[in-house]
Amino acid sequence: MEIHVRGYEAGDPRIKAPAGFGIDRAVDLPVEMDVLVVGTGPAAVVVVAQLSRFPSINARVIERRPGRLEVGQADGIQARSVETFQAFGFATEIVDEAYRNVEMCFWKPDPLDPTRIVRASRAPDDATGMSEFPHIYVNQSRVLDYFLRDAQRAPGQIVPDYGIEFVDCAIDPNSDYPVTARIRYVAGPRAGEERVVRAKYLVGGDGARSKVRASLGHRLHGEASMHAWGVMDILVNTDFPDIQVKCSIQSHDKGNILLIPREGGYLVRVYVDLGEVPESDDGKVRATPIEDIIATANRIIHPYTLDVRAVTWWSVYEVAHRITDGFDDVPAEQAGLRTPHAFIMGDACHTHSAKAGQGMNVSMQDGFNLAWKLAAVIEGRAPRSLLSTYAAERKVVAQDLINFDKKWSQMMAAPMDPKDDRGQLEHFYLSTLEFPAGFMTLYTPSMITLGTEHQALAVGFLVGKRFKSAEVIRRSDNRWHHLGHFHEADGRWRVYVFADEALPALSGTPCSDFAQWWSSDPNSPQVSYTPIGGDQNAVFDIKVIYQQDYTQIELANVPKAFKPVKVPFGLIDINQVFAAGHGRDIFRDRQISPAGAIVVVRPDQYVAAVLPLDAREALAAFFDGHMLTPPPQPDASRASSQRADVMSIAERTAL
Amino acid sequence: MEIHVRGYEAGDPRIKAPAGFGIDRAVDLPVEMDVLVVGTGPAAVVVVAQLSRFPSINARVIERRPGRLEVGQADGIQARSVETFQAFGFATEIVDEAYRNVEMCFWKPDPLDPTRIVRASRAPDDATGMSEFPHIYVNQSRVLDYFLRDAQRAPGQIVPDYGIEFVDCAIDPNSDYPVTARIRYVAGPRAGEERVVRAKYLVGGDGARSKVRASLGHRLHGEASMHAWGVMDILVNTDFPDIQVKCSIQSHDKGNILLIPREGGYLVRVYVDLGEVPESDDGKVRATPIEDIIATANRIIHPYTLDVRAVTWWSVYEVAHRITDGFDDVPAEQAGLRTPHAFIMGDACHTHSAKAGQGMNVSMQDGFNLAWKLAAVIEGRAPRSLLSTYAAERKVVAQDLINFDKKWSQMMAAPMDPKDDRGQLEHFYLSTLEFPAGFMTLYTPSMITLGTEHQALAVGFLVGKRFKSAEVIRRSDNRWHHLGHFHEADGRWRVYVFADEALPALSGTPCSDFAQWWSSDPNSPQVSYTPIGGDQNAVFDIKVIYQQDYTQIELANVPKAFKPVKVPFGLIDINQVFAAGHGRDIFRDRQISPAGAIVVVRPDQYVAAVLPLDAREALAAFFDGHMLTPPPQPDASRASSQRADVMSIAERTAL
Repeated sequence: MEIHVRGYEAGDPRIKAPAGFGIDRAVDLPVEMDVLVVGTGPAAVVVVAQLSRFPSINARVIERRPGRLEVGQADGIQARSVETFQAFGFATEIVDEAYRNVEMCFWKPDPLDPTRIVRASRAPDDATGMSEFPHIYVNQSRVLDYFLRDAQRAPGQIVPDYGIEFVDCAIDPNSDYPVTARIRYVAGPRAGEERVVRAKYLVGGDGARSKVRASLGHRLHGEASMHAWGVMDILVNTDFPDIQVKCSIQSHDKGNILLIPREGGYLVRVYVDLGEVPESDDGKVRATPIEDIIATANRIIHPYTLDVRAVTWWSVYEVAHRITDGFDDVPAEQAGLRTPHAFIMGDACHTHSAKAGQGMNVSMQDGFNLAWKLAAVIEGRAPRSLLSTYAAERKVVAQDLINFDKKWSQMMAAPMDPKDDRGQLEHFYLSTLEFPAGFMTLYTPSMITLGTEHQALAVGFLVGKRFKSAEVIRRSDNRWHHLGHFHEADGRWRVYVFADEALPALSGTPCSDFAQWWSSDPNSPQVSYTPIGGDQNAVFDIKVIYQQDYTQIELANVPKAFKPVKVPFGLIDINQVFAAGHGRDIFRDRQISPAGAIVVVRPDQYVAAVLPLDAREALAAFFDGHMLTPPPQPDASRASSQRADVMSIAERTAL
Repeated sequence: MEIHVRGYEAGDPRIKAPAGFGIDRAVDLPVEMDVLVVGTGPAAVVVVAQLSRFPSINARVIERRPGRLEVGQADGIQARSVETFQAFGFATEIVDEAYRNVEMCFWKPDPLDPTRIVRASRAPDDATGMSEFPHIYVNQSRVLDYFLRDAQRAPGQIVPDYGIEFVDCAIDPNSDYPVTARIRYVAGPRAGEERVVRAKYLVGGDGARSKVRASLGHRLHGEASMHAWGVMDILVNTDFPDIQVKCSIQSHDKGNILLIPREGGYLVRVYVDLGEVPESDDGKVRATPIEDIIATANRIIHPYTLDVRAVTWWSVYEVAHRITDGFDDVPAEQAGLRTPHAFIMGDACHTHSAKAGQGMNVSMQDGFNLAWKLAAVIEGRAPRSLLSTYAAERKVVAQDLINFDKKWSQMMAAPMDPKDDRGQLEHFYLSTLEFPAGFMTLYTPSMITLGTEHQALAVGFLVGKRFKSAEVIRRSDNRWHHLGHFHEADGRWRVYVFADEALPALSGTPCSDFAQWWSSDPNSPQVSYTPIGGDQNAVFDIKVIYQQDYTQIELANVPKAFKPVKVPFGLIDINQVFAAGHGRDIFRDRQISPAGAIVVVRPDQYVAAVLPLDAREALAAFFDGHMLTPPPQPDASRASSQRADVMSIAERTAL
């Protein structure tokens, strides 16, 4: 967390001063805006939190409900999502209050007496070290709370407009505000009123029955049969030995349970499989009473019993495996010919079972993928064509998700014959762990992701996959830090320069030659795309990592490319220089070549490129492919007035 | 964090529902109250946060300033303080925003050219593993913010009454409200108005010039000479290589600097030694201008230079090593004859240099020591004599602090002859690290601390010292936890039962025999002092730790003494059962006898007793010495109404 760099911050450093549209945000939804977000689900809140960090953008978010979500919905948070929380600054807080999963127990019919279940095996969570972040369970409402708190604390100070639903829209790509949307107040004093508003971009995060999707003319495609689940959050006394452990419970012929322990030590969520229902059932399964679900659960869990003391939420629902035929408003036949102005995300795009704990997680990554691109385009830092990569990238992820969940659901729902291979489900679970943890996503080459020609220079940073952090020693404070944890959701590109074998030098080494070019050559991305008058690392967060122990690194010998100057005081930032030490060695941990490497990471934390230190033209060409020369700095006047405020303190002290 | 145990909690689990005096707290300072706290410094805010967790107590806190502290003051936070933050629930949050110290660098005159300083050595912070918590630096204002936020979020919902100063008081031990205090409004619409208020107890945390101390007739005693310091918080560009590292910088003949890096990566605090001044100086040294302090710093740091870009706070002050002659209102000649009604804490009791980073830390422990005792006495759970232990215990700590700081200050201020032993300061620093980290405090036997007769049963839990946590596996969720981190500041006594070598059993083992006695014998503390109708662990937080791997522990075999039942749902709490596993073994780490042991820990986290599993009479006698039979449960009606609320959810679901 950077604090005081622009003058003393007296208050909570997580609460930013309002700026731009955040300074005097209109209470009412305006007639025209840059972005209209529909819904406050997991995908939408990520978009909102991200856009609120760009206060020059007027973004609004509408939600049908009259207020925040309080109960129910999803609760499984994969490690990739916690990484994302870290980028938004609240990972430790939410982990503190969540259930942390470290083990899954598999209960199966006792071969000696198949009417009884027995604990057959245990599987540790993330035994291979996929992430330094844990796998947690916490109510979805809390996840939404944290993102919305972040949106309110960011300079844009966005808060949802509750009690407003999206009705429909028309899109005219040639208009200044291409989206014309009809909205309706459904709560509060204006309930019943309809309005027409206009936006440059429309973002639909409005769920499986998305009206935005319908307005764009898309529909979900997939299976006709649906799978029904009873789900209940309960406070329970039981003799079942693993009530606070994640369990798959497969009975011989009474059905199956997925047991999810929840935050706080008492609540548990129980998913009870109610089987396949044809679409012709027409929702009748939803009338299943709670007593039936509890009775079924008790039959499955025999010889143990569940003495349910309170049901705090429950539901019966059916899901099919379905995927939308389009993720934005560009018709298939116009793909590549025009750029999109409307997008759908999350359940609006893909529906599936809850069993693999994927819905909320994949949805958040939909939002993270889209939001930084929207910000870059609206701020004039990137061409509109960047927006086409959203559908291209996330459609593949959605299809992978459907395929995975189909397989997983089938295995979970199958009746368990104790004479069968007892390890089948567990084997599948263990062999595919990277998927549910969120780390299988692999973006293929595009304008924002290069190929793998130079992958051998940094084997541990796979191009197209999320940057897997490792610990380094920061030379300024001589302390270990996770390199990836400096990657805030600030829309900046990361350029990690892993130095060659030489010690820091101002010239004469591959690393220093690169640094020289980076900071002064007219063709370097830094020179081309960083606005004059702001922080030197405002667009590219460049960091250097030396191979030596930190005690051998002296900052005076580090090139100025790695010591950016900050406004308003001209402070030299010495916090971007790293090394090995205290047992940490990122070159070892991520198999980085002693010759060094450049690792470029996208604003959404995916590795975009691995290049040799001398690949200057390739690096410049890569950024030239999706960046625009910056417009004049919108914040320049604000920065200088802030300077005046703080300098007056210095003046009072007679500097 | 326990959540949902009394029904579904829809919101932030850190924000508690108001209760008692928190439900409709009077905006104006009332005429009569249980506790009047004076000041909102580090000692006072701990008292306030602690008392706010007992909403049956009407506590108020007055502060001269019109609002919160914004700049300056202390910034060094020792690991013991972070442990305390953990007890109040905000350790991870404040660590996230603080500077974390891992190393101290010692700069000394270059033997080859004593006009230049060179880095002579490095010393790691806490190389011996004194604590799992870090040593951090963050502005005092943020520490106060967190405690005051906690006070506001706790059921008592206490917020400070700003703009009110304490004038003086009279104490009549025979009155229902023994303290009669005169207060004066010094800010806001009532500025200038004086009032008289009455309190059962008065707590003075009003600093070195404490008016509460003066009213009690005490004064500070100590040296006549004072030591002057210039201190500045600056944003600076420099070629000094360790500007973001804690440094002691000793020049040959230009003076000395203590450099403290601060939160956020840019700000640093520089203490510049201005030497001894006689009291006859009468504060003239305080007129030293900031330019002089900066110039002195530049002379000391030669050949490097400090280009100060902004001074965000600075001060010149003198301190003497002084200690009060009394910590409460009981005159020395009446000690033991009557119990106290007024207390002073923190700087009101002890003044010294800032160099060892002790002031804020020791003050917080003053507050933590006092507050739980006040709560126990006011709620009728303990005799008034308990309050006499505050002065007895903290006076010793204060004297130790003065002695340590005298020595440390002398060494830091001494001119550095490069031909002398260069390691003297560093040697002292390393050999006494436990003191500045906050872990030297040792409470001697009293009504709340037993002797060390049975220390051999748990060598790693020294009686009288703070409980040094270690990791255990909780059997409910099969996850590792720091045992000590469950120790919230809730006023409860901890009874850790380290089992003998047997597996869990309902009878027939030393551990199960103890459990049987604990939960059912009329003489057991549990039966004697736990109110009927509340949680079974409301007074004693009892936990069992088995020696075996957690996979061998089945909860069904654990005695009910370790599975307390909770209101309102009668939920059986299975979260109090621990074991070894995943490489963790607390018996090994804390040298606990295979025969088992009982370790009793005070509400302020100090070890009160180590006893064998069969020492029932000694255990009962210990608690009988400072506990009273409980009055009727004040919360019973509230608990049952809450039950009705939540049960209606269950009823709606047709349970």
